[in-house]
Amino acid sequence: MTYTSESLEKIISHLTGLPSIGRKTAQRIALYLLKQPREEVMELADAIRDLKDKIIFCSICRNISEQPICSICADTKRNGALLCVVQEPHDVFAIERTHEFNGVYHVLGGALSPLDGIGPEELDFRSLLAHIHNNKVEEVILAMNPTVEGDATAMYIDRLISPLGIQVTRIARGVPVGSDLEYADEATLARSLLGRTKM
Amino acid sequence: MTYTSESLEKIISHLTGLPSIGRKTAQRIALYLLKQPREEVMELADAIRDLKDKIIFCSICRNISEQPICSICADTKRNGALLCVVQEPHDVFAIERTHEFNGVYHVLGGALSPLDGIGPEELDFRSLLAHIHNNKVEEVILAMNPTVEGDATAMYIDRLISPLGIQVTRIARGVPVGSDLEYADEATLARSLLGRTKM
Repeated sequence: MTYTSESLEKIISHLTGLPSIGRKTAQRIALYLLKQPREEVMELADAIRDLKDKIIFCSICRNISEQPICSICADTKRNGALLCVVQEPHDVFAIERTHEFNGVYHVLGGALSPLDGIGPEELDFRSLLAHIHNNKVEEVILAMNPTVEGDATAMYIDRLISPLGIQVTRIARGVPVGSDLEYADEATLARSLLGRTKM
Repeated sequence: MTYTSESLEKIISHLTGLPSIGRKTAQRIALYLLKQPREEVMELADAIRDLKDKIIFCSICRNISEQPICSICADTKRNGALLCVVQEPHDVFAIERTHEFNGVYHVLGGALSPLDGIGPEELDFRSLLAHIHNNKVEEVILAMNPTVEGDATAMYIDRLISPLGIQVTRIARGVPVGSDLEYADEATLARSLLGRTKM
Protein backbone atom coordinates (compact mmCIF):
# COMPACT_ATOMS: atom_id res chain seq x y z
CA MET A 1 0.00 0.00 0.00
CA THR A 2 1.33 3.41 -0.96
CA TYR A 3 -0.80 5.34 1.52
CA THR A 4 -0.62 5.27 5.28
CA SER A 5 -4.38 5.59 5.65
CA GLU A 6 -7.17 3.37 4.44
CA SER A 7 -9.60 6.31 4.33
CA LEU A 8 -7.26 8.14 2.02
CA GLU A 9 -6.86 5.08 -0.19
CA LYS A 10 -10.65 4.77 -0.31
CA ILE A 11 -11.47 8.32 -1.30
CA ILE A 12 -8.74 8.38 -3.95
CA SER A 13 -10.12 5.23 -5.54
CA HIS A 14 -13.63 6.74 -5.44
CA LEU A 15 -12.55 10.01 -7.03
CA THR A 16 -10.42 8.33 -9.69
CA GLY A 17 -12.58 7.74 -12.70
CA LEU A 18 -14.94 10.67 -12.23
CA PRO A 19 -14.98 12.75 -15.43
CA SER A 20 -11.61 14.51 -15.96
CA ILE A 21 -10.12 13.03 -12.78
CA GLY A 22 -7.17 10.65 -12.92
CA ARG A 23 -5.31 9.15 -9.97
CA LYS A 24 -2.88 12.05 -9.53
CA THR A 25 -5.70 14.60 -9.49
CA ALA A 26 -7.71 12.39 -7.12
CA GLN A 27 -4.78 12.32 -4.68
CA ARG A 28 -4.41 16.06 -4.98
CA ILE A 29 -8.11 16.65 -4.28
CA ALA A 30 -8.09 14.25 -1.30
CA LEU A 31 -5.09 15.97 0.31
CA TYR A 32 -6.62 19.36 -0.44
CA LEU A 33 -9.86 18.34 1.30
CA LEU A 34 -7.84 17.10 4.27
CA LYS A 35 -6.49 20.63 4.73
CA GLN A 36 -9.89 22.32 4.39
CA PRO A 37 -12.05 23.27 7.39
CA ARG A 38 -14.14 20.34 8.62
CA GLU A 39 -17.40 22.20 8.00
CA GLU A 40 -16.69 22.78 4.31
CA VAL A 41 -15.78 19.16 3.70
CA MET A 42 -18.95 17.96 5.43
CA GLU A 43 -20.99 20.37 3.28
CA LEU A 44 -19.49 18.80 0.18
CA ALA A 45 -20.37 15.32 1.45
CA ASP A 46 -23.93 16.47 2.19
CA ALA A 47 -24.23 18.11 -1.24
CA ILE A 48 -23.32 14.79 -2.84
CA ARG A 49 -25.94 12.97 -0.73
CA ASP A 50 -28.58 15.58 -1.59
CA LEU A 51 -27.90 15.05 -5.27
CA LYS A 52 -29.35 11.57 -4.98
CA ASP A 53 -31.88 12.29 -2.26
CA LYS A 54 -33.49 15.45 -3.61
CA ILE A 55 -33.20 15.44 -7.38
CA ILE A 56 -35.92 13.83 -9.45
CA PHE A 57 -36.98 14.31 -13.05
CA CYS A 58 -39.70 16.69 -14.20
CA SER A 59 -42.82 14.70 -15.08
CA ILE A 60 -43.43 16.88 -18.15
CA CYS A 61 -40.01 17.49 -19.71
CA ARG A 62 -37.78 14.86 -18.00
CA ASN A 63 -35.29 17.54 -17.00
CA ILE A 64 -33.59 17.59 -13.62
CA SER A 65 -35.87 19.01 -10.93
CA GLU A 66 -36.60 18.98 -7.22
CA GLN A 67 -40.35 19.29 -7.69
CA PRO A 68 -42.60 17.00 -9.76
CA ILE A 69 -42.75 19.85 -12.31
CA CYS A 70 -39.51 21.75 -12.98
CA SER A 71 -39.10 25.51 -12.67
CA ILE A 72 -39.04 25.99 -16.46
CA CYS A 73 -42.23 24.01 -17.14
CA ALA A 74 -43.92 25.75 -14.18
CA ASP A 75 -42.97 29.22 -15.46
CA THR A 76 -46.12 30.75 -16.98
CA LYS A 77 -44.05 33.44 -18.73
CA ARG A 78 -42.51 30.73 -20.92
CA ASN A 79 -43.99 29.92 -24.31
CA GLY A 80 -45.22 26.34 -23.92
CA ALA A 81 -46.06 26.08 -27.64
CA LEU A 82 -42.36 26.28 -28.56
CA LEU A 83 -40.57 23.07 -27.59
CA CYS A 84 -36.81 22.49 -27.78
CA VAL A 85 -35.77 18.82 -27.69
CA VAL A 86 -32.27 18.11 -26.33
CA GLN A 87 -30.27 15.01 -25.50
CA GLU A 88 -29.10 15.73 -21.95
CA PRO A 89 -29.84 18.10 -19.03
CA HIS A 90 -26.52 19.90 -19.60
CA ASP A 91 -27.81 20.92 -23.04
CA VAL A 92 -30.69 22.73 -21.31
CA PHE A 93 -28.21 24.61 -19.11
CA ALA A 94 -26.12 25.53 -22.17
CA ILE A 95 -29.13 26.93 -24.05
CA GLU A 96 -30.42 28.74 -20.94
CA ARG A 97 -27.10 30.56 -20.70
CA THR A 98 -27.73 32.15 -24.12
CA HIS A 99 -30.87 33.92 -22.77
CA GLU A 100 -32.21 33.62 -26.36
CA PHE A 101 -34.86 30.97 -25.83
CA ASN A 102 -38.20 31.53 -24.15
CA GLY A 103 -39.88 28.22 -24.93
CA VAL A 104 -39.79 24.98 -22.96
CA TYR A 105 -37.59 21.89 -23.20
CA HIS A 106 -37.81 18.15 -23.47
CA VAL A 107 -34.84 16.04 -22.38
CA LEU A 108 -34.45 12.72 -24.19
CA GLY A 109 -31.70 11.40 -21.92
CA GLY A 110 -29.52 10.29 -24.85
CA ALA A 111 -29.38 9.75 -28.59
CA LEU A 112 -30.07 6.81 -30.86
CA SER A 113 -26.91 4.74 -31.15
CA PRO A 114 -27.45 1.19 -32.43
CA LEU A 115 -23.75 0.37 -31.89
CA ASP A 116 -24.17 1.08 -28.16
CA GLY A 117 -27.44 -0.80 -28.06
CA ILE A 118 -29.58 2.34 -27.78
CA GLY A 119 -32.59 1.98 -30.07
CA PRO A 120 -35.97 3.78 -30.06
CA GLU A 121 -37.13 1.59 -27.13
CA GLU A 122 -34.31 2.82 -24.88
CA LEU A 123 -35.25 6.49 -25.33
CA ASP A 124 -38.54 7.68 -23.89
CA PHE A 125 -40.22 9.04 -27.05
CA ARG A 126 -43.63 8.35 -25.55
CA SER A 127 -43.15 11.09 -22.94
CA LEU A 128 -42.07 13.44 -25.76
CA LEU A 129 -45.28 12.71 -27.69
CA ALA A 130 -47.34 13.14 -24.52
CA HIS A 131 -45.62 16.47 -23.86
CA ILE A 132 -46.38 17.69 -27.39
CA HIS A 133 -49.99 16.55 -27.17
CA ASN A 134 -50.82 17.80 -23.67
CA ASN A 135 -49.22 21.22 -24.08
CA LYS A 136 -50.47 21.99 -27.60
CA VAL A 137 -46.96 22.45 -28.96
CA GLU A 138 -46.83 24.27 -32.33
CA GLU A 139 -43.12 24.15 -33.17
CA VAL A 140 -40.50 21.61 -32.17
CA ILE A 141 -36.84 22.72 -32.35
CA LEU A 142 -34.44 19.78 -32.49
CA ALA A 143 -31.20 20.68 -30.68
CA MET A 144 -29.40 17.36 -30.95
CA ASN A 145 -25.60 17.24 -31.03
CA PRO A 146 -24.18 17.63 -34.58
CA THR A 147 -22.97 14.01 -34.59
CA VAL A 148 -24.02 10.83 -36.39
CA GLU A 149 -26.09 9.82 -33.34
CA GLY A 150 -27.62 13.29 -33.04
CA ASP A 151 -28.48 13.32 -36.77
CA ALA A 152 -30.14 9.89 -36.54
CA THR A 153 -32.15 10.95 -33.50
CA ALA A 154 -33.28 14.20 -35.14
CA MET A 155 -34.34 12.30 -38.25
CA TYR A 156 -36.28 9.76 -36.18
CA ILE A 157 -38.13 12.47 -34.23
CA ASP A 158 -38.92 14.38 -37.44
CA ARG A 159 -40.60 11.29 -38.91
CA LEU A 160 -42.48 10.75 -35.66
CA ILE A 161 -43.79 14.31 -35.30
CA SER A 162 -44.17 15.74 -38.83
CA PRO A 163 -47.30 13.65 -39.54
CA LEU A 164 -48.98 15.40 -36.59
CA GLY A 165 -48.90 18.68 -38.54
CA ILE A 166 -46.37 20.28 -36.20
CA GLN A 167 -43.52 22.40 -37.55
CA VAL A 168 -40.16 20.71 -36.91
CA THR A 169 -36.90 22.69 -37.17
CA ARG A 170 -33.31 21.94 -36.27
CA ILE A 171 -30.72 24.37 -34.85
CA ALA A 172 -28.31 25.63 -37.54
CA ARG A 173 -25.06 23.78 -38.01
CA GLY A 174 -22.29 26.01 -39.37
CA VAL A 175 -19.07 27.80 -38.57
CA PRO A 176 -18.84 28.81 -34.90
CA VAL A 177 -19.12 32.55 -34.19
CA GLY A 178 -15.72 34.14 -33.74
CA SER A 179 -13.89 31.30 -35.48
CA ASP A 180 -11.80 31.33 -38.65
CA LEU A 181 -13.13 29.91 -41.94
CA GLU A 182 -9.61 28.66 -42.65
CA TYR A 183 -9.77 26.30 -39.69
CA ALA A 184 -13.31 25.03 -40.16
CA ASP A 185 -13.46 21.35 -41.12
CA GLU A 186 -14.96 20.36 -44.49
CA ALA A 187 -18.16 18.89 -43.06
CA THR A 188 -18.92 22.01 -41.03
CA LEU A 189 -18.18 24.32 -43.94
CA ALA A 190 -20.29 22.22 -46.33
CA ARG A 191 -23.12 22.28 -43.82
CA SER A 192 -22.86 26.07 -43.41
CA LEU A 193 -23.12 26.48 -47.22
CA LEU A 194 -26.20 24.28 -47.41
CA GLY A 195 -27.81 26.09 -44.49
CA ARG A 196 -27.08 29.61 -45.79
CA THR A 197 -29.68 32.22 -44.88
CA LYS A 198 -30.87 35.35 -46.64
CA MET A 199 -29.06 38.54 -45.57
CA MET B 1 -30.34 30.77 -12.12
CA THR B 2 -29.09 28.53 -14.88
CA TYR B 3 -29.99 25.27 -13.17
CA THR B 4 -33.42 23.91 -12.43
CA SER B 5 -32.31 22.38 -9.13
CA GLU B 6 -30.87 24.01 -6.03
CA SER B 7 -29.08 20.77 -5.06
CA LEU B 8 -27.34 20.75 -8.41
CA GLU B 9 -26.40 24.42 -8.06
CA LYS B 10 -25.00 23.65 -4.61
CA ILE B 11 -22.83 20.69 -5.54
CA ILE B 12 -21.45 22.46 -8.60
CA SER B 13 -20.43 25.45 -6.52
CA HIS B 14 -18.83 23.09 -3.97
CA LEU B 15 -16.90 21.16 -6.59
CA THR B 16 -15.77 24.30 -8.44
CA GLY B 17 -12.46 25.38 -7.02
CA LEU B 18 -11.22 21.95 -5.96
CA PRO B 19 -7.77 21.37 -7.49
CA SER B 20 -8.02 20.97 -11.30
CA ILE B 21 -11.80 21.47 -11.30
CA GLY B 22 -13.42 24.45 -13.01
CA ARG B 23 -17.13 25.12 -13.38
CA LYS B 24 -17.55 23.12 -16.57
CA THR B 25 -15.86 20.05 -15.06
CA ALA B 26 -17.87 20.49 -11.85
CA GLN B 27 -21.11 20.42 -13.86
CA ARG B 28 -19.91 17.37 -15.73
CA ILE B 29 -19.06 15.53 -12.50
CA ALA B 30 -22.39 16.47 -10.87
CA LEU B 31 -24.41 15.19 -13.84
CA TYR B 32 -22.24 12.07 -13.98
CA LEU B 33 -22.92 11.36 -10.30
CA LEU B 34 -26.64 11.85 -10.90
CA LYS B 35 -26.53 8.98 -13.38
CA GLN B 36 -24.54 6.64 -11.12
CA PRO B 37 -26.14 4.04 -8.84
CA ARG B 38 -27.29 5.50 -5.55
CA GLU B 39 -25.03 3.21 -3.52
CA GLU B 40 -21.83 4.34 -5.26
CA VAL B 41 -22.65 8.01 -4.79
CA MET B 42 -23.38 7.48 -1.09
CA GLU B 43 -20.05 5.65 -0.74
CA LEU B 44 -18.29 8.68 -2.19
CA ALA B 45 -20.09 10.97 0.27
CA ASP B 46 -19.12 8.65 3.14
CA ALA B 47 -15.51 8.48 1.96
CA ILE B 48 -15.35 12.28 2.07
CA ARG B 49 -16.78 12.29 5.61
CA ASP B 50 -14.31 9.60 6.73
CA LEU B 51 -11.45 11.71 5.47
CA LYS B 52 -12.17 14.24 8.20
CA ASP B 53 -13.47 11.81 10.80
CA LYS B 54 -10.78 9.14 10.72
CA ILE B 55 -7.56 10.73 9.56
CA ILE B 56 -5.21 12.19 12.18
CA PHE B 57 -1.49 12.93 12.12
CA CYS B 58 1.19 10.52 13.34
CA SER B 59 2.53 11.73 16.70
CA ILE B 60 6.09 10.87 15.66
CA CYS B 61 6.44 11.92 12.02
CA ARG B 62 3.35 14.16 11.45
CA ASN B 63 2.34 12.12 8.43
CA ILE B 64 -1.28 11.21 7.68
CA SER B 65 -2.42 8.25 9.77
CA GLU B 66 -5.47 6.60 11.29
CA GLN B 67 -3.61 5.48 14.43
CA PRO B 68 -1.62 7.68 16.83
CA ILE B 69 1.52 6.15 15.27
CA CYS B 70 1.50 5.67 11.49
CA SER B 71 2.17 2.38 9.73
CA ILE B 72 5.64 3.48 8.61
CA CYS B 73 6.82 4.59 12.06
CA ALA B 74 5.32 1.44 13.58
CA ASP B 75 7.11 -0.84 11.08
CA THR B 76 10.05 -2.45 12.93
CA LYS B 77 11.61 -3.52 9.63
CA ARG B 78 12.20 0.13 8.80
CA ASN B 79 15.52 1.77 9.65
CA GLY B 80 14.57 4.37 12.25
CA ALA B 81 18.10 5.84 12.22
CA LEU B 82 17.62 7.05 8.64
CA LEU B 83 15.20 9.97 8.51
CA CYS B 84 13.83 11.60 5.38
CA VAL B 85 12.32 15.06 5.89
CA VAL B 86 9.66 16.12 3.36
CA GLN B 87 7.32 19.07 2.98
CA GLU B 88 3.95 17.35 2.51
CA PRO B 89 2.29 13.95 2.93
CA HIS B 90 2.09 13.51 -0.85
CA ASP B 91 5.90 13.61 -0.93
CA VAL B 92 5.93 10.54 1.34
CA PHE B 93 3.62 8.70 -1.07
CA ALA B 94 5.82 9.69 -4.02
CA ILE B 95 9.00 8.39 -2.35
CA GLU B 96 7.26 5.22 -1.14
CA ARG B 97 6.37 4.45 -4.75
CA THR B 98 10.09 4.28 -5.65
CA HIS B 99 10.60 1.31 -3.23
CA GLU B 100 14.15 2.67 -2.76
CA PHE B 101 13.86 4.00 0.76
CA ASN B 102 13.73 1.90 3.92
CA GLY B 103 14.07 4.63 6.52
CA VAL B 104 11.37 6.71 8.16
CA TYR B 105 9.91 10.13 7.35
CA HIS B 106 9.16 13.42 8.95
CA VAL B 107 6.53 15.66 7.37
CA LEU B 108 7.05 19.40 7.89
CA GLY B 109 3.68 20.43 6.49
CA GLY B 110 5.17 23.13 4.29
CA ALA B 111 8.33 25.09 3.49
CA LEU B 112 9.78 28.38 4.68
CA SER B 113 8.31 31.16 2.59
CA PRO B 114 8.66 34.64 4.09
CA LEU B 115 6.59 36.14 1.26
CA ASP B 116 3.64 33.97 2.29
CA GLY B 117 4.25 34.69 5.94
CA ILE B 118 5.63 31.23 6.68
CA GLY B 119 8.65 31.61 8.93
CA PRO B 120 10.38 29.13 11.27
CA GLU B 121 7.61 29.56 13.85
CA GLU B 122 4.91 28.40 11.42
CA LEU B 123 6.63 25.08 10.72
CA ASP B 124 6.89 22.56 13.53
CA PHE B 125 10.67 22.13 13.74
CA ARG B 126 10.39 21.19 17.41
CA SER B 127 8.66 17.92 16.54
CA LEU B 128 11.42 17.24 14.00
CA LEU B 129 14.10 17.74 16.68
CA ALA B 130 12.15 15.55 19.11
CA HIS B 131 11.86 12.86 16.42
CA ILE B 132 15.63 12.99 15.81
CA HIS B 133 16.42 12.88 19.52
CA ASN B 134 13.97 10.19 20.60
CA ASN B 135 14.72 7.80 17.74
CA LYS B 136 18.50 8.16 17.73
CA VAL B 137 18.57 9.28 14.10
CA GLU B 138 22.03 9.04 12.48
CA GLU B 139 21.37 10.49 9.06
CA VAL B 140 18.81 13.05 7.94
CA ILE B 141 17.95 13.15 4.23
CA LEU B 142 16.38 16.44 3.17
CA ALA B 143 13.85 15.84 0.40
CA MET B 144 12.48 19.33 0.00
CA ASN B 145 11.10 20.50 -3.35
CA PRO B 146 13.85 21.87 -5.63
CA THR B 147 12.47 25.41 -5.33
CA VAL B 148 13.59 28.58 -3.58
CA GLU B 149 11.37 27.76 -0.61
CA GLY B 150 12.62 24.17 -0.50
CA ASP B 151 16.24 25.32 -0.66
CA ALA B 152 15.72 27.81 2.16
CA THR B 153 14.02 25.16 4.30
CA ALA B 154 16.81 22.64 3.65
CA MET B 155 19.44 25.20 4.56
CA TYR B 156 17.59 26.11 7.75
CA ILE B 157 17.28 22.48 8.84
CA ASP B 158 20.95 21.83 8.04
CA ARG B 159 22.00 24.66 10.34
CA LEU B 160 19.64 23.36 13.02
CA ILE B 161 20.80 19.74 12.91
CA SER B 162 24.45 19.72 11.82
CA PRO B 163 25.67 20.99 15.23
CA LEU B 164 24.13 17.85 16.80
CA GLY B 165 26.75 15.73 15.00
CA ILE B 166 24.19 14.15 12.68
CA GLN B 167 24.96 13.62 9.03
CA VAL B 168 22.68 15.78 6.86
CA THR B 169 22.26 15.01 3.16
CA ARG B 170 19.97 16.29 0.46
CA ILE B 171 18.46 14.30 -2.37
CA ALA B 172 20.31 14.90 -5.64
CA ARG B 173 18.73 17.45 -7.85
CA GLY B 174 18.22 14.94 -10.58
CA VAL B 175 14.64 16.07 -10.18
CA PRO B 176 14.02 18.93 -12.63
CA VAL B 177 14.44 22.32 -10.93
CA GLY B 178 11.23 24.30 -10.54
CA SER B 179 9.00 21.27 -10.70
CA ASP B 180 7.01 19.54 -7.97
CA LEU B 181 8.10 16.32 -6.18
CA GLU B 182 4.61 15.04 -6.60
CA TYR B 183 5.04 14.92 -10.37
CA ALA B 184 8.51 13.40 -10.58
CA ASP B 185 8.55 9.92 -12.13
CA GLU B 186 9.69 7.04 -9.93
CA ALA B 187 12.99 6.47 -11.75
CA THR B 188 14.09 10.10 -11.39
CA LEU B 189 13.05 10.17 -7.77
CA ALA B 190 14.86 6.88 -7.05
CA ARG B 191 18.01 8.20 -8.74
CA SER B 192 17.89 11.36 -6.69
CA LEU B 193 17.70 9.30 -3.49
CA LEU B 194 20.71 7.16 -4.46
CA GLY B 195 22.74 10.20 -5.52
CA ARG B 196 22.19 12.30 -2.41
CA THR B 197 25.16 14.58 -1.54
CA LYS B 198 26.57 15.89 1.70
CA MET B 199 25.29 19.35 2.65
